[in-house]
Formats: sequence, structure tokens, C-alpha cells
Amino acid sequence: MEKFQVSLKKVVDDSYEICIGEQLADQMVDDLASGLVGTVNKFAVITDSTVGPLYAEPVLKGLRARGFTGDLFVIPAGEEHKTREEKARIEDEMLGKGYRRDCCVVAVGGGVVTDLAGFLAGTFARGVPFVNYATTLLAAADASIGGKTAVDTPLATNLIGLFYQPKKVYIDLAAWRTLPKRQIISGMAETIKHACLADSQFFCWLEENMDKVLTLDPECCLEIAKNNCRIKYEVVMQDERESGLREVLNLGHTVGRAVETVSNYQLMHGEAVGIGLAAACALAVNAGIMPAEDAKRVCILLEKAGLPVRIPSYVDVDVLLKKLYTDKKVRNGRLRFVLPEQIGKIYQVADNDFGYPVTEEQAKEAILAIS
Amino acid sequence: MEKFQVSLKKVVDDSYEICIGEQLADQMVDDLASGLVGTVNKFAVITDSTVGPLYAEPVLKGLRARGFTGDLFVIPAGEEHKTREEKARIEDEMLGKGYRRDCCVVAVGGGVVTDLAGFLAGTFARGVPFVNYATTLLAAADASIGGKTAVDTPLATNLIGLFYQPKKVYIDLAAWRTLPKRQIISGMAETIKHACLADSQFFCWLEENMDKVLTLDPECCLEIAKNNCRIKYEVVMQDERESGLREVLNLGHTVGRAVETVSNYQLMHGEAVGIGLAAACALAVNAGIMPAEDAKRVCILLEKAGLPVRIPSYVDVDVLLKKLYTDKKVRNGRLRFVLPEQIGKIYQVADNDFGYPVTEEQAKEAILAIS
Repeated sequence: MEKFQVSLKKVVDDSYEICIGEQLADQMVDDLASGLVGTVNKFAVITDSTVGPLYAEPVLKGLRARGFTGDLFVIPAGEEHKTREEKARIEDEMLGKGYRRDCCVVAVGGGVVTDLAGFLAGTFARGVPFVNYATTLLAAADASIGGKTAVDTPLATNLIGLFYQPKKVYIDLAAWRTLPKRQIISGMAETIKHACLADSQFFCWLEENMDKVLTLDPECCLEIAKNNCRIKYEVVMQDERESGLREVLNLGHTVGRAVETVSNYQLMHGEAVGIGLAAACALAVNAGIMPAEDAKRVCILLEKAGLPVRIPSYVDVDVLLKKLYTDKKVRNGRLRFVLPEQIGKIYQVADNDFGYPVTEEQAKEAILAIS
Repeated sequence: MEKFQVSLKKVVDDSYEICIGEQLADQMVDDLASGLVGTVNKFAVITDSTVGPLYAEPVLKGLRARGFTGDLFVIPAGEEHKTREEKARIEDEMLGKGYRRDCCVVAVGGGVVTDLAGFLAGTFARGVPFVNYATTLLAAADASIGGKTAVDTPLATNLIGLFYQPKKVYIDLAAWRTLPKRQIISGMAETIKHACLADSQFFCWLEENMDKVLTLDPECCLEIAKNNCRIKYEVVMQDERESGLREVLNLGHTVGRAVETVSNYQLMHGEAVGIGLAAACALAVNAGIMPAEDAKRVCILLEKAGLPVRIPSYVDVDVLLKKLYTDKKVRNGRLRFVLPEQIGKIYQVADNDFGYPVTEEQAKEAILAIS
């Protein structure tokens, strides 16, 4: 037997900038025209059917006005279209229009668009550059930092995908004002989650300013976008590949994702996360690791934001529990939950380990408490 | 407008080892059991319907004997199954069997298996480790170095995929002896290509030893596997992301891939590359950049290996040309070909640029010359 050593050690620099402001389409077109993504022949502007006419078409027009070639690729709006099939359809459309290695993907929209378009960019010709133009609060909170891209499959949410970093992210705060109220509220769940897990001061600010936040006061929006970026960045920076610390971002997502699925997507992602946060707090209180008054403050803030903190009556609790305890990584009958210790701090089970082991019994108790 | 800087500079070490020898399944099982891929819960052994019973089942048995959990996932044999749909089917099967982030993909087979399984591993839970057990000459020559993984789509070969490095590669030379003659011959095309583009001495060795090579003499097989790894490594090392030098590996592949597709996969990949190599030589001779006697030696060696050097009569030359000049990156009506300058050396158009511009007229002339 002979051995051959392949040495592939290298320095990778995936750094990028996030622009936060109002109406940044011209800014983005300027950046792309000035070589932000290198020499590119064609721009694939990927959007959804809602956002397309409002934000993506102007971007395409701007690019064309600069002499670039580009096309619009439209995903039907809605989480249920974040699929491998939609990705394949757009790939084929791009290939049919002559897109090859020298293209750039411009994602314009919310989390569904940025997740799918980022994943597509990462596997198109084995990786082409992409930029994110985030038009929703959720995309700003969730999709602008971390490099997580993915699609959903019948058996799993966000499990097929990549870590793939954008070349730049634009958070258009003006776009938030065109969002349906329900989507703003849904986006607020990730913001509250971030405050819960890392920043009690920001949590207090949210308690004081939630009314103003919900009117989409420009200064409040900027504050929210900045804090979301900062908190997520601080967590992600320390653990890009999600081995330990990054797990804390899953606060509220264990029950959240399950209830989102079991609700058959009647619940929006953020609404499900709101319920998931309430469940995590209930679990933490029952386990004696979080003061009841802190849990109460979390639920009050969630409700102030208009988020649900109880499992809707149309969700079957037994189905939900079954979903939780068969789908996920169950070790010795225990599912590991990220739980808050207090507002602004996650309970650390051991060094770099934030997964608190929870039996089905305990989960049931907590879930019944918020049913 | 506010700006937020995301710094993501880091050192990545994707180094790995290639084992070349006979019957390495036990070796691989030993490595996996000793933590080669870290703590892994489940092994997804991906193979095809031909190789499965011969090589993949023993691997799975070996893993189970060590107390590991694993399953066999079988792709129907043949390039036409290297698809997104097959990838999705296996993903769903894995998800259904409870595979999550803590699994490892073990690819056992030829290029189709290693390409698809590597791509699947790269996007499963945003990347799980994988090892390659290469059972064909082509996989040894093509898939063991470079980290290229991909699937085919109706409109493009190998265009949807990733650069994703295996944790270790095993080249089982004994497996070559179970291959159909046609596949051995097909695999020889990449070997001859490597010699053509980088190593005139190895080319001479092939001229002298081709008869012995075709009997699969063990020492010759080892020599071939080693040289293929070395040459590809030297090229890939200098240009992992295929910006310049790595392009030279495309020698013979411009016409090769087109004729493979237009033949409706009646031609095996290596056979198509043989024709592509002959076409590249004809183009290089016509362009006055390669001595005719060198081109002749290439064709003689290809024929000695049993490879075609002429376009089969069932392939329509006009369809082939159309495929070439509509599908690919055509700049000012010129398609860029990697062309040999002499045996062992690629013609360099400019610094780090190996794409010789060829008009449709010139391509037609060369293609007719080998029709």
C-alpha cells in the first residue's frame, strides 16, 4: 500500500459588509458595477412573487442601465416554496438562459429568498458570488449573518444546504414599512430571542420601546437591525461551524420548528419561535434554572410584540411531542434544549455545551403549561 | 446608512491522505473506527447497483462488526443517474432513517458515486464528513483529487455541485480487475490526458507499457494511480478554485463533454475524452502550435489503449458544433480550448491563461478531420 498526502491548508477570507439604511437598491447597483463581485457577465436576480415588482425589478433595471445583463427569477412567495424543486427549476432556467460560472446571484427578498438563493449560488457552477438584499425584518435578523443557506424537504426544515457567505448584505429598513403587520410581528421573535440570549440591556430597551418599534419608527428600526447584527455576529464569530456556542441561537427553535411544521405552516416562522421561546422559558422555570419572573417578562414582551405564547388549539400536542422526540437527536431518551438562565444569558450545561437534556415527560409538562 | 463589518478570515485545513493498494476495505473500516471523521453516529454507505454487492456491502458489514450503525444507499449504475433527483431521493431516505448532522458519508464506487455522494455530503446538514472508496480507474484518475463534486442536469454536465474535500481517499487497485474491459479503457483516457498535459516521461512510459497496463499488471496499476494523483495534485494545488492553471485539466473535455452528451451517453466519459483529446490535437496542429508528429503519437497511444479517436458516425457533426457554440462560454464568437503545445506541455496563451480562442470555423475543420 502506498500513501499520497494532499496538503490543502489555506487562509480563507469570507469577510463582508452589511449596509443598513433606507432604499439601498442604487447603492447595491453601484457596488456591483464597481466590481464588488469581480468580473461578472450576468446577474441572476432571484426574488419572490411579492417582493419582485417592488424591489427586484428596480434592481434589475438599475443593472441594465449600467450595461449589465440580467434576468429576474421568481419563486412563488411562501415558506412552502423553499424547496429543492424550486432551486432546480431556477437552476434550469438560468442554464437555459446561458448562465455559467461567470455570473452573480442577487437575492432580493425575505428569508425564504435569501436562504434558497444563497444555497443556489453556493452550488451553481460549484459556487458563484452572491449578495443579499434583505427586505424583511426576519431576513435582517436571521439571514444576514451566519452564512446559513438551505431549503426545506418533506422530512426536515433547513437540513439540506450550505454554509456560504454573501459578498455583501443590504438591509432596507424602508421595505419593512411595506410588510404586512403579521410579518413584522413574526420578525420580532428573532429579535426578542437575540435579546433573551445575549443582551439584557437590549431586552430592556425593547420592553420600553416596543410600541414605537411596532409603528416602525425609523430610529427604532435602525436600532433593531444593528443590535440583531451585533448579537448574532458575536455568537457566530466565535463558532462559525455551529459546534458549540452557536447552538444558543437555537433558543426557542426546538419547539418552534416542530410547532411550525405540525401547524402545517399556518404559523409563520417567527410566531412559532415565539411559542418556542415561551416553551423554553417554561422548561427552564420547571427545571429550576430560570427565575419565574424572568420567564414572565419574556412572555409579556412577546405578547406586547403581538406574538403568540401559547400553542394554538388546532395543534395536536401528542403529534407535536412525537415530532420532537422522533425527528431530532434524542440521546438516552432526552432531547437537548437551549434554555435561558436569565434574561440575557443562556444556561451553560458544561464547557461549550448549551444543550440541556430534557425528557419527553418534562417537555410534555412544559408544552401542556402553554397549551 | 450604517455599516457593519463582518470579519470572517480563517485558516482552513482540508488536507487528506490517499491510500493506494489492493483490497482496502478493512483499512477504511479501521480508519473510520479510529476516529478519522470524528465522532459519528451513523454511516451512510452510498454506492451503485453494480459495485454495491462487491465492495459496499463488505464495508457496511465491517462497520457493523465494529458496533457502528449504517445503511446502504444504492444509486442505479450509470452516468444518467448522477442527478439532482437521485441525490434528493437518497437525502430523503437518509432523513427517513434518522440521519442528521452527526453522520458520515462513505462513497464506494466509481466517478458517478463519488461525485454524487460527495455533493450530497457537502449539503447534508450543511456538510458532513465523507470518504471516497474508488473502485474504478476513472474515479482514481478523476475523483480522488480536486474536491470537485457535482450532478448532471438536463442542460449541463457537472454544473451543479461543490468543491468539497473528502477526509480520505482509498484507491482499490484490485477492484480494477473486476471492471469490464470497456471501463478500464475509458478510464485510461484521463491517464493519457494527464501525461499529455504535464509529463512527457510518463507519456513515454505509457507508450512502452500500454500492453502490460491493459492486462492490469499490479505494478503498472500502482504506477498509473500514483502518477495520476501526482499530476492532478500538482495542477490542483496551484489553483484550487479553477481560476487559471486548473483549466488545463479540461484538455480534451470541451469537445469531449459535448460529444458525450450528443452521443446520448452511448459514449462513455473516457471514450468521449479520447475523441476530445484527438480533436484538441487536431486543432493545435491546425493552429500551428503543436508538431504534427506529437499529435500523431497521442492518437496512436489512445488507439493502443483501445480508445476512439474519431467521432462515431451516429453523431451529427452539426448538432455537435451547435452544442459547443451555444452551450459554452463563447467570447466574440470564439470558444476557448485548452490545447497542447507538445506532449507534456499545454499551450499558454498569456500569463495564467490557457484558453486558446477558436472560431466555429476552426472547430468545424478539426472535427471534420476526425470524423
